[in-house]
Amino acid sequence: MVAMSASPLLRRYAFLLHLRPGAEAEYDAAHCAVWPEMLALLKRAGICEYSIYRRETLLVLTLRCPDFEATWRIIENDPVNLRWQAAMAPFFVSAENLRIGERFPMLEEVFYLA
Amino acid sequence: MVAMSASPLLRRYAFLLHLRPGAEAEYDAAHCAVWPEMLALLKRAGICEYSIYRRETLLVLTLRCPDFEATWRIIENDPVNLRWQAAMAPFFVSAENLRIGERFPMLEEVFYLA
Repeated sequence: MVAMSASPLLRRYAFLLHLRPGAEAEYDAAHCAVWPEMLALLKRAGICEYSIYRRETLLVLTLRCPDFEATWRIIENDPVNLRWQAAMAPFFVSAENLRIGERFPMLEEVFYLA
Repeated sequence: MVAMSASPLLRRYAFLLHLRPGAEAEYDAAHCAVWPEMLALLKRAGICEYSIYRRETLLVLTLRCPDFEATWRIIENDPVNLRWQAAMAPFFVSAENLRIGERFPMLEEVFYLA
């Protein structure tokens, strides 16, 4: 189920990432100072209400956009994103348990109360 | 960091729960049919934009409310909630790694883009 948000044009998505143990403080610091051009790219790709939540090395990313795949196709090969991902890559452990066709380990929304 | 949402009266919270392996389908079904009186209690306690996301046995719960502890104090001893929690209890494994004073394993919001 991909759930609709209050706006009929936006859907809610959530996915997981895993930090390398010991990378927590650097990851947090980087996300207190995300490059303005990276924020602009996210907005231009249609993302809003984007939160990254962390507990120890587990990251939960939640966002709203009209269509997750279309949004990520705008982002993925943009030079700004390529530089950002290169800067972030040392913080992550490689994605485990990806299902066929998944870009990230997606969560399914099983309940929503407006 | 407890982050402010678009409304100055609402903050964003996220926490984790873990299902017992095998309980996924029953949990999802229960959350397609949450009792109206339980939904009313959540709203009365000040919760909005409440999503429950699941991947396998991991649950991520995200919501907005003015103050998490105050909201949960309204909910926790309400007879409707006691009945709901009794009905849900068989689905969960007991909370691991709670920190001192934690009601749930809370996630910290380390990034937010409106």
